[in-house]
Amino acid sequence: MPVVSITLLPGYSQEAHTRLVGRVARSVRSVIAAANAGTTVFVNEAATYQRDGKVFSQGGPELPDASALVRQFLELMQARQLDEARALLAPGFEMVFPGGKPMKEFSELLAWAKTRYTRIGKHFERFDEVWGEEGTVVYCTGTLEGVWLDGRAFSGIRFIDRFEVAEGRIRRQDVWNDLAEVAPRA
Amino acid sequence: MPVVSITLLPGYSQEAHTRLVGRVARSVRSVIAAANAGTTVFVNEAATYQRDGKVFSQGGPELPDASALVRQFLELMQARQLDEARALLAPGFEMVFPGGKPMKEFSELLAWAKTRYTRIGKHFERFDEVWGEEGTVVYCTGTLEGVWLDGRAFSGIRFIDRFEVAEGRIRRQDVWNDLAEVAPRA
Amino acid sequence: MPVVSITLLPGYSQEAHTRLVGRVARSVRSVIAAANAGTTVFVNEAATYQRDGKVFSQGGPELPDASALVRQFLELMQARQLDEARALLAPGFEMVFPGGKPMKEFSELLAWAKTRYTRIGKHFERFDEVWGEEGTVVYCTGTLEGVWLDGRAFSGIRFIDRFEVAEGRIRRQDVWNDLAEVAPRA
Amino acid sequence: MPVVSITLLPGYSQEAHTRLVGRVARSVRSVIAAANAGTTVFVNEAATYQRDGKVFSQGGPELPDASALVRQFLELMQARQLDEARALLAPGFEMVFPGGKPMKEFSELLAWAKTRYTRIGKHFERFDEVWGEEGTVVYCTGTLEGVWLDGRAFSGIRFIDRFEVAEGRIRRQDVWNDLAEVAPRA
Amino acid sequence: MPVVSITLLPGYSQEAHTRLVGRVARSVRSVIAAANAGTTVFVNEAATYQRDGKVFSQGGPELPDASALVRQFLELMQARQLDEARALLAPGFEMVFPGGKPMKEFSELLAWAKTRYTRIGKHFERFDEVWGEEGTVVYCTGTLEGVWLDGRAFSGIRFIDRFEVAEGRIRRQDVWNDLAEVAPRA
Amino acid sequence: MPVVSITLLPGYSQEAHTRLVGRVARSVRSVIAAANAGTTVFVNEAATYQRDGKVFSQGGPELPDASALVRQFLELMQARQLDEARALLAPGFEMVFPGGKPMKEFSELLAWAKTRYTRIGKHFERFDEVWGEEGTVVYCTGTLEGVWLDGRAFSGIRFIDRFEVAEGRIRRQDVWNDLAEVAPRA
Repeated sequence: MPVVSITLLPGYSQEAHTRLVGRVARSVRSVIAAANAGTTVFVNEAATYQRDGKVFSQGGPELPDASALVRQFLELMQARQLDEARALLAPGFEMVFPGGKPMKEFSELLAWAKTRYTRIGKHFERFDEVWGEEGTVVYCTGTLEGVWLDGRAFSGIRFIDRFEVAEGRIRRQDVWNDLAEVAPRA
Repeated sequence: MPVVSITLLPGYSQEAHTRLVGRVARSVRSVIAAANAGTTVFVNEAATYQRDGKVFSQGGPELPDASALVRQFLELMQARQLDEARALLAPGFEMVFPGGKPMKEFSELLAWAKTRYTRIGKHFERFDEVWGEEGTVVYCTGTLEGVWLDGRAFSGIRFIDRFEVAEGRIRRQDVWNDLAEVAPRA
Repeated sequence: MPVVSITLLPGYSQEAHTRLVGRVARSVRSVIAAANAGTTVFVNEAATYQRDGKVFSQGGPELPDASALVRQFLELMQARQLDEARALLAPGFEMVFPGGKPMKEFSELLAWAKTRYTRIGKHFERFDEVWGEEGTVVYCTGTLEGVWLDGRAFSGIRFIDRFEVAEGRIRRQDVWNDLAEVAPRA
Repeated sequence: MPVVSITLLPGYSQEAHTRLVGRVARSVRSVIAAANAGTTVFVNEAATYQRDGKVFSQGGPELPDASALVRQFLELMQARQLDEARALLAPGFEMVFPGGKPMKEFSELLAWAKTRYTRIGKHFERFDEVWGEEGTVVYCTGTLEGVWLDGRAFSGIRFIDRFEVAEGRIRRQDVWNDLAEVAPRA
Repeated sequence: MPVVSITLLPGYSQEAHTRLVGRVARSVRSVIAAANAGTTVFVNEAATYQRDGKVFSQGGPELPDASALVRQFLELMQARQLDEARALLAPGFEMVFPGGKPMKEFSELLAWAKTRYTRIGKHFERFDEVWGEEGTVVYCTGTLEGVWLDGRAFSGIRFIDRFEVAEGRIRRQDVWNDLAEVAPRA
Repeated sequence: MPVVSITLLPGYSQEAHTRLVGRVARSVRSVIAAANAGTTVFVNEAATYQRDGKVFSQGGPELPDASALVRQFLELMQARQLDEARALLAPGFEMVFPGGKPMKEFSELLAWAKTRYTRIGKHFERFDEVWGEEGTVVYCTGTLEGVWLDGRAFSGIRFIDRFEVAEGRIRRQDVWNDLAEVAPRA
């Protein structure tokens, strides 16, 4: 045990089924110490389904993979493809970088960055997903490498980004890193 | 839809059932845009269960709530109840604080802290849980308040802690914060 | 086939279970010509149930048997226990007797009856229930017997009553019968 | 709750599925006060099914909609398409009209009608279905309009018809109305 | 896969459940090469069950273990507790021993045996059960040891017994062995 | 009751499904005295299935019918198509015939037979299958007919063969019969 049966309307992709059974297994195993060997999850497709007095012929759409969305955003930002990156944001998007001042526009971010380094890149180590009531939170951890304002290179500086994703768009980004720990003091 | 049935052996607490149905619902809704109103999850108790040629009379134990465990650890650390805090750690526990040097003993951490502030406290804003194959990752975010080495107070400084929890013990802690951003320069 | 599984929260009476499985079997067999021998319906009790983001510890209450309620009403009326009968009515109750004028008060009904017979009684032959979206409609058929205004007895006169029942109260009564067919003409 | 799963052999039409889930939901909600929002019914198709030592490759046929059958009968009668109407009747069909004398042939009915009106039409207000062990009872209510024998028109006269339907044929019709209430006295 | 759910009325013993899940797993694995590790079978207890228009409050009784019944019979026969052994037989019981003449009475058997050995005992090696439409067939294999009519001992002689068991009684016994192969010739 | 649901991955033949539901019904009815009329078994096909952290897209293969395999082997032996018969054997195959000496090669068997009869044939009466943990045991019973060494014919002599079948191959054959009972003595 446990044996979990997920009944869905037909029409979802095999990829969605695969994500479903994997995530459900992980969420069950976060509550009880069930061996992986004994954790069975399957998807069953209902031929017809009624709830709330209505027959539904189609379920809600598949959601994009939140981690992939975040990775795409980070790569677009790094490549300074700002328009494409902006297309992934929800209205009201806000970002908070070290120092803690909320920013809404990439131009603010670029101005802030200019006071710190001349170039920066992210090496991603891990994406973690938190499946919440209102959407998915994605945490990305890894290290930064780049060039300080004085021309010296840096690398291996720890960072963590937190993203709130809902309905396929990024609502918020929070960034922490050790840049200030190691930055050359003026 | 979806309708999810979780079949378990009897003996789990109502609290475990409640966590199960809630987490399974959230993990399903992270893959498909199912309305909460149409997401049905229930627990069914099997009278007898055989897998792998064996009848099991008892399932794996309930796992402690990983977020509560982390909160308890953080509060014990703050109260400098180090022995009690240490009891929550798995063998091989490692922690990484800003600057990035891995530490294994609280004494290292205390020595490190002494070079930065005379007192520190955490105001917790949010605990996020990532349900993984190998255990649960807990992210704790919030703000720091305390007193610098020069006696001035600080507060509202952003932090994030990442904890790896497995089998009811903390395996690893990673900490990021904005202290270096705002710390008074010598 | 068909095999029907009804999953409920615990706490319902055996009598409610029995009514449930019987009615569900009949409703299925009204759509497909399934032999009674092959129509299987069972009730399964869920240990825990979440929908719409909430764990429910109790299902909606059992509804009184609508036919029994109607029979009780008719017997109370016949015994002229008007207060007890009135207690079974929903606010806004309306009744329509032959001739078609809507009445709201028993006093109207009694006045109407006085122009037709000196005594009347109902012999019930059958109660039929219609399970609807907004409640249950009960049809009662049978024969009337009584005494005309001129003192002569009558019996075996066909009648049909239609009752709308919802939330355990009678909302409306419609009556048809053959009294006018056979009544002595003045 | 409740969550109802109906397992069927494949091959039924979507229309039969839709009727099934709707009727089962209504029959469940006639016993317990379950909100429509929480009443979930779905159809599952079994790949293979054995009962009574036999594998069945096909379920019993879909039954025609009893209300539609009754409406069709009533319209054919009104249009005096007696042969077509007769084709909808089961052997042994019997009808009882006001006055209470059982009739078996349309000719009897027409003779009876001739003593009452020169033309009659039915305005249907509602069809109610009772899903029974032996078939479905359909109640049709509405008003009559037509022309008396003396040439005067009438309308808005209440009627109710009761039909017993089984195996796609009408077995019995019982009619009540207020014609005698309002008919001009000779 | 496979995942097998057996829904039963409550009241069966844990021992019956255990036999059920084990036997069902074995029968499934006789058709498809499913690993034991992936063969999941569980028993679910229905709260209420209707079939064929009737609510059943109790299932059919548990059947005695056919192998144990056969072993008991063989041991009683060996101990010449003939009355107790006879109590395990169904009416019409018949037995066929080497040579092939059907016998109905133990007295016939004893007379037959007297022409062959003065004492015989069975060493049981294996009981196999065949679950059939009309009951269970039990095969018992092993070796015979005893004393020939001439006083010499024998042992290790192969035998096989076939028993038809139904409704908790033995209907038929067929015996084969190698006694004639090795018997001393007169 | 009982109602048994077997959830499988898609891809199995209808014939495998039919064998599955039949065997599962028989194994259930070997434990509880369930009427055939009330024993319902169906196969459900899962759209997606995960166990042990892996999504399986295909189940284990269908196993050949063990009785048919045994019958084929016996017929090949009788027709002295030894190579074809040998192809049905598992490595390490062993056979034991009356007298009890284990043999591994058909040549041994043929030598043994030559001392007993000049021709032999089997009339099959029944094949019984035992579904075990390690494979299926097939029992074949019937009668032998043939010609003794002295030229006289025999027939109607009882035999029983026991075969161990696993993974589609025969691992072992044990034979008992009454030949020695009735053989002409030298």
